Amino acid sequence: MRAELLIIGSELTSGEKLDTNGQWLCTRLAELGVPVRFTTVIGDDLDDNIDAFKAASGRSDLVVSSGGLGPTQDDLTRDALAKAGGVGMVQDDEALRMIEALFARRDRPMPDRNRTQALIPEGSEILHNPTGTAPGIWMRLDRAWVACLPGVPRELKAMFDAELAPRLRASGLAGRVVLGRTINLFGLGESEAEQRAPDLTARGRIPEVGITASDATISFRIRAEGADEAEALALIGPTAEAIYERFGDFVVGEGTDDVAEGLVAALKSTGKTIALAESCTGGLIAHRITRVDGVSPHFPGGVVSYANGVKSTLLDVPADLIASKGAVSPEVAEAMAEGARRRLGADLGLAVTGVAGPAGGTPEKPVGLVYLGLADASGTRHRRLALGPEQPRAVIQSRASKHAMNWARLALLGKLP
Amino acid sequence: MRAELLIIGSELTSGEKLDTNGQWLCTRLAELGVPVRFTTVIGDDLDDNIDAFKAASGRSDLVVSSGGLGPTQDDLTRDALAKAGGVGMVQDDEALRMIEALFARRDRPMPDRNRTQALIPEGSEILHNPTGTAPGIWMRLDRAWVACLPGVPRELKAMFDAELAPRLRASGLAGRVVLGRTINLFGLGESEAEQRAPDLTARGRIPEVGITASDATISFRIRAEGADEAEALALIGPTAEAIYERFGDFVVGEGTDDVAEGLVAALKSTGKTIALAESCTGGLIAHRITRVDGVSPHFPGGVVSYANGVKSTLLDVPADLIASKGAVSPEVAEAMAEGARRRLGADLGLAVTGVAGPAGGTPEKPVGLVYLGLADASGTRHRRLALGPEQPRAVIQSRASKHAMNWARLALLGKLP
Repeated sequence: MRAELLIIGSELTSGEKLDTNGQWLCTRLAELGVPVRFTTVIGDDLDDNIDAFKAASGRSDLVVSSGGLGPTQDDLTRDALAKAGGVGMVQDDEALRMIEALFARRDRPMPDRNRTQALIPEGSEILHNPTGTAPGIWMRLDRAWVACLPGVPRELKAMFDAELAPRLRASGLAGRVVLGRTINLFGLGESEAEQRAPDLTARGRIPEVGITASDATISFRIRAEGADEAEALALIGPTAEAIYERFGDFVVGEGTDDVAEGLVAALKSTGKTIALAESCTGGLIAHRITRVDGVSPHFPGGVVSYANGVKSTLLDVPADLIASKGAVSPEVAEAMAEGARRRLGADLGLAVTGVAGPAGGTPEKPVGLVYLGLADASGTRHRRLALGPEQPRAVIQSRASKHAMNWARLALLGKLP
Repeated sequence: MRAELLIIGSELTSGEKLDTNGQWLCTRLAELGVPVRFTTVIGDDLDDNIDAFKAASGRSDLVVSSGGLGPTQDDLTRDALAKAGGVGMVQDDEALRMIEALFARRDRPMPDRNRTQALIPEGSEILHNPTGTAPGIWMRLDRAWVACLPGVPRELKAMFDAELAPRLRASGLAGRVVLGRTINLFGLGESEAEQRAPDLTARGRIPEVGITASDATISFRIRAEGADEAEALALIGPTAEAIYERFGDFVVGEGTDDVAEGLVAALKSTGKTIALAESCTGGLIAHRITRVDGVSPHFPGGVVSYANGVKSTLLDVPADLIASKGAVSPEVAEAMAEGARRRLGADLGLAVTGVAGPAGGTPEKPVGLVYLGLADASGTRHRRLALGPEQPRAVIQSRASKHAMNWARLALLGKLP
């Protein structure tokens, strides 16, 4: 069973619009047990469309297209499909009545051009469109079933669920259920993660495990196929357990949860509070944790101490310590953490001071040098990060904030040495 | 001249991730006069990748791929390209040195797997990657030039601009220049903007002007085509002037500049400083302005006062004022602004307090109710925003931060009534 998509529209190939129908169709088809192998995005060119329909229907069992069903001159899907199949066009009376009725309901005269929307390739049948003017098309072409859906996302989704999904099930094209589970890690590199799990990521393994990295967060993506949901879940379970066993301390969360969600979960599970002192991250940590619902009882607040004066007046960092050691130093990071903890009355004080660049680097303190400070009832410590110097400011700020949050998470859970 | 894209990754064909590289590449290539005709999205399958490279290089003059250049087993682009060309793989010594140097700078040992990133098809050359580990590839295949770029969007964009764009110009592949200029406004609605500029946005106008809205920022996008850059720029100039004449006070910046960049520009032009007191925005304003280069001299810092106690201890808001008026009130917003201005020693104090939701709303103070406070040498004032209640937390936080920053920008420029 191979499926592929044709996403049609010159507004997509020109870059003016971002296609989201492709992703939605891939997800929904995968859930129906129909994996998508290719997606082709093409402009409103008749020859390109004919070629694309021919190529797709010659190598796949199911072809789903999006777009090109409207009434205007650049809507070419009907034509292209007929020409790819070597058949003529016929008027579908039911489709015409539906289109006429739609205009009548809206008290608007039907422009002549809309009649073309009732023309379909000989031998095809229409897919009803409960929301818009353009009916879809369902047709056998070469070795494939072809389904043409409209490009408007709302209409495409409605037609898929009401018309296409039942046909896929009835025709036996829909197969087994495919489910996914994503486990997110922070604190080790992508290749390091893979080296420690070659058995899990081996090609052909069941269930399949992929590794991806996004802004230094590593994701293990488990995908499993089953006759039904229970069977797929049963396959996923042991692999997820193996990942937790091997990488437990690195796991920050699942799905879309990243380090901030992991830190907030640790705050909730321990009932502790955290206060922040941010210099080079400039409020990013505060922003990231206050995006998470329910953090309020665990977050009295923070200080963004960009100027050295603020480190002294609001965080009690001695001015002579800043003068002697520099604002970017282990000593100042620790003093900031202690100041935040004391002044904001929290269990934990977390501080970040560093050189985010692009200016301000020196040979001794290059761009990307960051010190973290952490203060709790048991004492104060610091950590040094080298995140540059080639990285842009936004990356250094983001990485520094993630390392800081992950360190606090591990401290809360008692996982620091 | 025909170009096409190969977007590679099973996380895309499965629907788990939405590709945005394709749209970015279509836009940038169009600007260089290289229209994209096909985009094919394929999973991490070697045979599919070989087929796709063969098909693309047999029908197009330029093929640009994204993804599959990482160090893991499912990164197949190097292999697929070599097999499509019927050549072997060779180690590129310069690429290996670059990868080794990168790990050395980060004080981390290089895993063996990363060596594979220095292997490239015989006869190809590398495209330097200024930001990540994976070099790109530039190779002649069949009738096409092929450029393989990494999948990480930041790396892809940097490599495109630094390595690929110059090659397209030098090789004569780039054609007529299409240039765009985007002018960003804040403080009026999309339909209001369009109603006040029907002559500018008329279809068929040269140069073409489009309006888009993103997170309440309205963008006028001017696009013009010319034989060279100077011709395109000459077309754009008068239209940009007309937009500035009509919407001057609303303009926050151009290109990717949004309200934060507009505020920082106003701070720089006036030489003033700003201090922040953030409650419901939780550090988002501090984060947004500290992303902008060169803000340091103008931003001593801010306080994220999530807990009421912090409003009192760090911002001198009287506890009985909070008790009598509530933390979300005009009086507390003004007191926070005054406290931030005084305690952090800034020219301007800007405060935000509100109900970001999803919980915490009441009939009198519903989700989305936000008060801004602004204190400067001339006195203190407040503003009330109603941003909910149907909006999610992230939208309310973002809109509140933008309204606050834009208000401070107008105050600095003397544009407030």
